[in-house]
Amino acid sequence: MVKINKDLFSLNNEYSFYNIANIVKDYKKNNKDKKVISLGVGDVSRPIVKSVIEEMHGAVDDLSNMDTFKGYGASNGYDFLKSIILEKEYDNKFGLDEIYISNGTKSDVTNILELFDIDSKILITDISYPIYKDGSSCLNRKVYYADTDDNFKPTIPKEKYDIIYICSPNNPTGLNYTHEELKSWVDYAKKNNSIILYDNVYTAFIETDTPKSIYEIEGSRSVAIEFRSFSKTASFTGVRCSYYIIPNEIYDGVNDLWKKRTINRFNGADYIAQKGAYATYKEKAQKDIKENIKYYKENAKLLINAFKKYNFEVTGGIDSPYLWVKINNDMNSFEFFKFYLEKLNIVIVPGIIFGKKADKYFRASALASREVIEEGIERMKNYYEKNI
Amino acid sequence: MVKINKDLFSLNNEYSFYNIANIVKDYKKNNKDKKVISLGVGDVSRPIVKSVIEEMHGAVDDLSNMDTFKGYGASNGYDFLKSIILEKEYDNKFGLDEIYISNGTKSDVTNILELFDIDSKILITDISYPIYKDGSSCLNRKVYYADTDDNFKPTIPKEKYDIIYICSPNNPTGLNYTHEELKSWVDYAKKNNSIILYDNVYTAFIETDTPKSIYEIEGSRSVAIEFRSFSKTASFTGVRCSYYIIPNEIYDGVNDLWKKRTINRFNGADYIAQKGAYATYKEKAQKDIKENIKYYKENAKLLINAFKKYNFEVTGGIDSPYLWVKINNDMNSFEFFKFYLEKLNIVIVPGIIFGKKADKYFRASALASREVIEEGIERMKNYYEKNI
Repeated sequence: MVKINKDLFSLNNEYSFYNIANIVKDYKKNNKDKKVISLGVGDVSRPIVKSVIEEMHGAVDDLSNMDTFKGYGASNGYDFLKSIILEKEYDNKFGLDEIYISNGTKSDVTNILELFDIDSKILITDISYPIYKDGSSCLNRKVYYADTDDNFKPTIPKEKYDIIYICSPNNPTGLNYTHEELKSWVDYAKKNNSIILYDNVYTAFIETDTPKSIYEIEGSRSVAIEFRSFSKTASFTGVRCSYYIIPNEIYDGVNDLWKKRTINRFNGADYIAQKGAYATYKEKAQKDIKENIKYYKENAKLLINAFKKYNFEVTGGIDSPYLWVKINNDMNSFEFFKFYLEKLNIVIVPGIIFGKKADKYFRASALASREVIEEGIERMKNYYEKNI
Repeated sequence: MVKINKDLFSLNNEYSFYNIANIVKDYKKNNKDKKVISLGVGDVSRPIVKSVIEEMHGAVDDLSNMDTFKGYGASNGYDFLKSIILEKEYDNKFGLDEIYISNGTKSDVTNILELFDIDSKILITDISYPIYKDGSSCLNRKVYYADTDDNFKPTIPKEKYDIIYICSPNNPTGLNYTHEELKSWVDYAKKNNSIILYDNVYTAFIETDTPKSIYEIEGSRSVAIEFRSFSKTASFTGVRCSYYIIPNEIYDGVNDLWKKRTINRFNGADYIAQKGAYATYKEKAQKDIKENIKYYKENAKLLINAFKKYNFEVTGGIDSPYLWVKINNDMNSFEFFKFYLEKLNIVIVPGIIFGKKADKYFRASALASREVIEEGIERMKNYYEKNI
């Protein structure tokens, strides 16, 4: 019998996005008369803005002509895209050799583990986005869990860990980390020679006076790798374009080493996606993208109000599209997920997916269309006004 | 100091595509008056055919409209693409649960190692495409080298290995494996509970009576995973779309396990790329793509004739775009690479990149434009007629 990677058998099974999706699929198949809507899943609903679409059409045309045809780009991305990201997002405080264009943060945040010793002790928050644990398992890495405060943010451990995943604005809780919180993690990392993997894909949603990048924290360049994406900002969930920064200060020669790794493991992001990502920085595109973010934020407000009206405690939905909602009856989160699916035909994401401590919570998302948000609120109203 | 993955330091350094590319870049920078052309690198030159381009424009338009917008697709690809590949390439002998759409075979052939035990003994041919060794190193896997016959094909080892990389049509030698050769590897794998990773991205170039898929070999379904790509066939090197087959017979439940892995590690290939890949199967597109392959094959013939004329021994160029050329003087392959770069301003790929045994060979490629091929041949003529 062929020897299978035994760590794959530790992947979350019953309580996973994969299983949730299958349960929803089965429910729909067996209840074709019911119109199931999702107030939970993290996909966007707004289309890509016009000026970006135009640039993507131009990129497709480039590929149709021998003189303008583009084959392999660099494994780490085109300079035209790297340059504009460095200028617009990082005020040119990093160089072209410190940024990598890729095809999605989900892959990037676990692929980066290849840079570090396989026996590195990895710290994740108990509770967190399940990819950190399960992606680490695929790569035969072992994770440990940090204790959490009342907001499900990790508290600084006494022990030494080599790699620390921080997701901010947080999936699932929707909260952004404060300057003080990040400073204490940067200090911890400097003291312990640790690396912070900073998953920052919702940065465009931040409106409170909290850091938009970990590099706002003094001393972070020697200890933090930051990951971002065009998915939620520019509606690129189907197009696939992400980026990350590895500061040269992390380790002498780190970017030479990582470029050698990347040229062996990846052939670059799609050219059309990179041209589209570039176009998101044009003035008109920025204006339209800000309108989309505003639209989602209005969705979030509608949802927060509705949940509060029916006696749920809610956090998040301010600096992120996610709402973190405390279950207001004696169900656990999986029971509540099934109850909402079967009684209201609404999909929410049960907290248990993010960790056992979250079993009295669920994640809702403001990324659906206004129509779906309003329909969901209407169903809640009908249900709760009949049943309270 | 942060602990770095020590296996990254074993990546080929001096003799790598990365280093070759840097040497060429430096040479161009310091010799701006010279027009350097490449007869070596494996990128395509023909643009994407019109009917595929039209479909890709349609896909971009889908993304611009709320009603047709596509966000996340399945991690393992859209059914529309999986179905047509299964029908057209595999005569529906596999199911939708056995095929995965991805964004490039370079990533796929090493990512698949995550399915298998980290201590698996991996066998690669001495000589071979360097990604197998270096990609395995990134993932902390250890490779062993199979002896080779006169054609640089591996001979069946006496020892047991768990995973065997076979590249056919071969990069760099350009030769396709025969039915008998593959049968002996399938038999070996069945006897030793091994898995064959069959890298088959040049299948569209095969014209001799040799297998176009490893699944033509009886018994292969329980031991072989096959990888293919739209890159070289449909000029998708910049667009990124690949696929692979994991037969259910590999291991009971293998595809459930691998889907759980994939949902944690990858968010699917680009929607536009998948729509484009789908369109490559339309009648007009197939006709135009066959014309492109024919064009490259004519390039290969021109190159073979030219090299032979100047007393090089050549194999390949029949079932693949690659020519494998024996160096006809006393230089080693790296010296010859520099000599061609500096004297003829032609880039070829030195054999040493593929292994020490190949240090009297270089790889040439027929994928350039006719103009470049003819220019290269002209330069060879000028050089050799003056110097012989």
